[in-house]
Order: sequence, then C-alpha cells, then structure tokens
Amino acid sequence: MKIEAVDFFYLSMPQVTTEADGSQDALVVRVAGGGHVGWGECEAAPLPSIAAFVCPMSHGVCRPVQDSVLGQTLDGPADIARMAALVEYDSMDLLQAAHTFSGVEMAMWDLLGRARGEPVWKLLGYKASHGKVPYASQLFGDTPQETLELGRKARARGFRAVKYGWGPIGRGTPAEDGDHFAAAREGIGPDGILLVDVGQIFGEDVDRALARLPALEKAGATWLEEPFHASALEAYGQLAAKSAKVKLAGGEGAHNVFMARHLIDYGKVGYVQIDCGRIGGIGPAKAIADYASARGVTYVNHTFTSHLALSASLQPYAGLAQDTICEFPVAPKSLAVDLTSNHLKPDANGEVRAPDAPGLGMTVSEAALRQYRVDVEIKVGGKTLYATPAV
Amino acid sequence: MKIEAVDFFYLSMPQVTTEADGSQDALVVRVAGGGHVGWGECEAAPLPSIAAFVCPMSHGVCRPVQDSVLGQTLDGPADIARMAALVEYDSMDLLQAAHTFSGVEMAMWDLLGRARGEPVWKLLGYKASHGKVPYASQLFGDTPQETLELGRKARARGFRAVKYGWGPIGRGTPAEDGDHFAAAREGIGPDGILLVDVGQIFGEDVDRALARLPALEKAGATWLEEPFHASALEAYGQLAAKSAKVKLAGGEGAHNVFMARHLIDYGKVGYVQIDCGRIGGIGPAKAIADYASARGVTYVNHTFTSHLALSASLQPYAGLAQDTICEFPVAPKSLAVDLTSNHLKPDANGEVRAPDAPGLGMTVSEAALRQYRVDVEIKVGGKTLYATPAV
Repeated sequence: MKIEAVDFFYLSMPQVTTEADGSQDALVVRVAGGGHVGWGECEAAPLPSIAAFVCPMSHGVCRPVQDSVLGQTLDGPADIARMAALVEYDSMDLLQAAHTFSGVEMAMWDLLGRARGEPVWKLLGYKASHGKVPYASQLFGDTPQETLELGRKARARGFRAVKYGWGPIGRGTPAEDGDHFAAAREGIGPDGILLVDVGQIFGEDVDRALARLPALEKAGATWLEEPFHASALEAYGQLAAKSAKVKLAGGEGAHNVFMARHLIDYGKVGYVQIDCGRIGGIGPAKAIADYASARGVTYVNHTFTSHLALSASLQPYAGLAQDTICEFPVAPKSLAVDLTSNHLKPDANGEVRAPDAPGLGMTVSEAALRQYRVDVEIKVGGKTLYATPAV
Repeated sequence: MKIEAVDFFYLSMPQVTTEADGSQDALVVRVAGGGHVGWGECEAAPLPSIAAFVCPMSHGVCRPVQDSVLGQTLDGPADIARMAALVEYDSMDLLQAAHTFSGVEMAMWDLLGRARGEPVWKLLGYKASHGKVPYASQLFGDTPQETLELGRKARARGFRAVKYGWGPIGRGTPAEDGDHFAAAREGIGPDGILLVDVGQIFGEDVDRALARLPALEKAGATWLEEPFHASALEAYGQLAAKSAKVKLAGGEGAHNVFMARHLIDYGKVGYVQIDCGRIGGIGPAKAIADYASARGVTYVNHTFTSHLALSASLQPYAGLAQDTICEFPVAPKSLAVDLTSNHLKPDANGEVRAPDAPGLGMTVSEAALRQYRVDVEIKVGGKTLYATPAV
C-alpha cells in the first residue's frame, strides 16, 4: 500500500501548568493507506512537531518530514526502516524531525499490524508479549511525611513498584534528600520496588549526585534516574563507577539510537529508558532493546501520556521476559485517559502487557479528538501549510 | 537593560532546490532592549524554529523559548549564560529549542556589544582578533576532470585552502573516489590546503570510510569531514585510531556542548567544527573553543549562510592564534549576500577576521529583509502567536 495521508491532531487540557506532567497536551498522528488507518503519538511540543512535518524545504538535507513519508510504499517493516533512514538523512539539519517522525512511525506500525491482523510485537519478531510490573510514577512530597503517605497510597492502589521524582530533591542538603528517600521506603514497605528520578537536577556535577548515593543505597533504591543532563555521558559514567548497588537509569531524552547506545556504553546505565515518541518510534526503540539485552542492561519504557503511547512503548520489549518493569502513567490528565476508549489494565498478577490485538490494539476516541482539539493554522507565503484536519 | 522584543524574519530565495546549499533560506533574529538592537541568525529550518519560540507550553520542562528570554535582564555575558541555562532546563523536552535559541543568543551578544561599544570577541575575553585562512567550500565535480578544474578556479580566485564535499564520493568505488581526491590535489596545486567533506555518507560503516583513507592520505588531505552520522562516536573513534595522517573533522550537527565534547573525547576528531547557529550560540561555541584548545584539537567554524552568521561564528575563536582555518561561504545565494550591507573580505594576506567593531560589526540590510521576506502566520486556538513583524 501507499501512505495516502498523514494528519496531526493537537490536543490540550484547557489549562496547562508548569508541573512536570507530560499528559497536559498531546500530538496524535493518523496515517492512512490501503483502506486502513493507524494511530501514533509524538511526545513533546505539538506546534514545532507539526511545523517540522509541513515546513518548506531549506535545502537538500533540511527537508520537511512529509517529503520522506507521503506517497511512500508501506508493505512491511523494512519499508518503515527505509523511511526512517530517509528522514534521518534528508532531514539531517531539522532538529525537531525525530520527535515528529516518532508519532508517524508508531502510526505506520499500527497501520501495518491492522492490515495484517497482527500485533506490532509479532511484526517485531517476538513470539509472546510478557507481563510487566507497572510502576506508579509520582512526585516527591514537599515534606518527608507527605512522601511517606504518597508511598502508602500507591501501595494501597496495588502498585508494588513506585517511582518518586523531582520535587525538593537536589535543591536542599543531601541529609534532607536522605529523609525523603527513607520516608519513601517506609511508605512503600520493605518489599516495594523503589525508583528515584531527579530530573537532571545535578547538571553534570558528579559530587552533588554522589552525596545522595549512601542514602539511596540505604533506602534500597533500585535506580537513580536522570541525575544529569541527558547528554552528560562522562558524569553518568563517573557516577556509575562509584555506585555499588544503586544502578543509574536514563535515556528518555534520546532522539536517536546513538544517544541511547552511548548512555549504555559510555554512561554505564543499568536501565535504559526509551520514549518511543522521541527516539524515532518503535523501530529504533526495538534496536535499543536488542542492544541493551545483549549487554545485560535492562530496557524500560518511558511513557507519561496516553495508553496509545503506552502500548507503543511496550511493543519494543514485549518479548523480553527478563525486562519486567514498565512505566505506567498513574494519574494522567483526563485528555490522556479519554484519548483511547480502551486501556491497558493490570491483570490479576498486577502486570500489564502489550495487547494481543492487531496493530497497537488501541482504539482512539473521536469524541476525545473533538473535545480536546486545539485549532492550528500555519500559513507560509500566503499558502496554508497546515490546518487542523477533520476527525 | 531588559529584553523588550525578539522578532524573527524568515527569508528565502524564490526557489529552493535539493542542493546541499544552506544559504537558500535564513531565519534572522532581532533582539531589542535598552534602546539598542542586536541581530543573529538561526541555522536550519525557519518555520519549526519560529514555532519553538512561540508555541504554547506543554509542561514545566517543555516551555517555549520565549519564556526564558522575554523580559529578562541583560547587563553582561553572565546574563546570556543564565538565559541559556534557563532554556536548557525549561525547554529540555523541546528538541528544536537549541536551534531557535542559537540565533537569539547571537543577537544578545550583538546587542550587548553595541551597547558597550565593544566587539563580541572582547566581551568573550580575547585581546585580539586573529586572521584566519578562509577555505573555499564547494562540491566535488561529477567527473575527476571537473573536480580538477574546480580546484584551479578556486586557486585563481585567491583561495589557498579548498574544501570539496558531497557529490559522488561514497556512492561509487574507493578507486573512483581516489581519482577525485587526486584530481582535487592536482587542481589546487601542491601547496594548497585540501579538505574533504563526505556529508555522513558512510552512516557508521567504518570499513567503507577506511577504504578511502589511503587515497586521501596520498592526496595530502588535511581532514576528512563527517564520514559518519553526527552522533556515531564509536565509528569516529575507530576510524581516527586507524588514520595515520588524515585527521577527522566534525561537529556541525552538535546542538549542545556535550555533543561537541564527545566528538573530541570519544570520536577523537582533530578538528571540531561548530555552527553557532545550532549549538546554542556564541557562548557554548566559546566553551568548545576553550575545551578543544586545552586538548590540542583545532577549532573551526561551520558557516554556510550570511556574513552575519560568519561574524558570529568567528567570534568564539577569534583570539586563538593557532587555529588558523575558517569556513567561508564562497558562492552563497544572493539572499545571504544581500542580508548585510557590509562583508568580511579577505585582507592583503588573504585572511579574514572577526571585525574590530561593536557587537558583531555587521549591518543588516532592511531592504533585504523586505525583498526576501516570507510571510508567516501561526494561529493556535484562534490566537495569532506569530505574524511576520514589521521591519
């Protein structure tokens, strides 16, 4: 079949705040071809991502993403990889292209799976879709007592793995942070899986991160996530060499396979966290799952938006039985909940898995596309390059 | 003073082709504050870069670039660095932000220099602006004979350094490529500086690049530029370890200081090429000039657009007397020529230098802003977020 149309839907909550919650808006992509439709979702800023799809060409290696997609043949996974290579080369100088293409690529996998009646994880070569333990992702409390209570609540809701992030960590003393880590452990109980995300707060200051390690170790944290700038490989590598028990985690900022590989090879992370909505989609994410697997590094999805994005993010490591943790958006905004009419719910064992259904297995709600739509119009040189499409 | 206004002007030639010529369009930035005006230029796609400045916030670390700039205090270089850090953190998830901010940052240096009556290179701490040998940058011919003649022409125009790029290299056999390298040497003569740019053609295939090294060495090439994907650090490192005489060059794709540092530390390049219009502006470029200098790596600008961009790109290493080569746009489109009413011309020694004049020392032509302007209008949710400003 041919890619006949690619449509972008910019959705948003009525109010967007400065909280670190990526579910406040969304850029949903619909790809149509051969009588089928597939859906995907780009992570990060909708407007620049739309612009990167429709913008006029600047020169031979700064072409809009649409030039590598529209009208192309899509008959199998190799065609998706071929288009990805086209984007990588012909949009070499268009920085935003990777984020834009990520949602398009997801939608192409969904389309292909629906056309063949197969789940994407089978198209990727996996025989089974293994259950993953979802972790509840939440912010640290303002006080250790709040942090403790948040842990109890997460356990009461059935989560045996809990990630705490951002908040006061790194802004006070190591001792103050240590109180939060201890409170988190107390809140989730001795058998809970404790994960800590500090949102790049230490820049590339290894010593400041190092000062938090003893308390993290004492609290039995499984990983310390994003202590540094997404590209601070040296700092990651130095901290990893000094950490006996707590592994480092990172990778959500990777917008190509090289960046994720470097976090493994130079940064020595123990957990590589890939956002399919940023790295270029499901294909590059699968390449990282293979790469990590061969090196004893655990693959984890990064997902903070809808269950469409969650399904996409589970596919690349669905068949890796030994990689058992997954990020699960616990309290997303209503937009992210309403976007799909079905949801990936934990089973009796408390595990979620990529669905055994054609494509990504998710049904996008047209009502949600209408309810949350943000009308966008982009005119260049008197010509309308983009206008919000009809549902 | 306060940053009172930031305006973007999207300029384009009437026709933009697929040739690898970055001077076919431009995104010029005007920053106003305290009764002064400064100018800068973003490299790469204008529309997504404008969108990254004006887009609605997605969440706390995916804010538009304007939120870190408008209304901020600008009293010295430290304020520019402070705003850069704000953008890096608060626009962490907005991939295009680095390209957008690059032009804004340049314009802030220009503004500050004009306000103080000092050239930017003095604000950067340099005592002098040293002359650089400009190299003529041109494509390989379709045949070795064409390549030879192009070399003779470049020498006849006074260039003793010539860079050949792209074209047939890497698309045929190593022997065919070798014929081009030999022809290039013959064309520019035995005393010419020969530079070769292959535009990422080998992806990350070290062997294919390695097969070209003997002929490059025989032709006396000073560097082999961008043999691989901008992030293929491992491939760079492996090829560098196997090259006795020909140094590797790269870095134009760096959109933060980490990427450029990694090309030095892991990729073992001998020449690091920084585009101030991509890496975040003049400040990060200066950081790389210092970093390279301390490690025996030569800094070179990457510039393929106007003399406004050229002046900006010379500032970060203006004071490094030992780094003597500079990229010089030899046959830019009329837009890039007309954009400034003054130009950086080679002196009696055939050298160019960052001007000894306030700011970037370039005068932007209002006539050019009118002649080449592309009208853009971006509406989101019924509100106009961007419309081409008045000159």
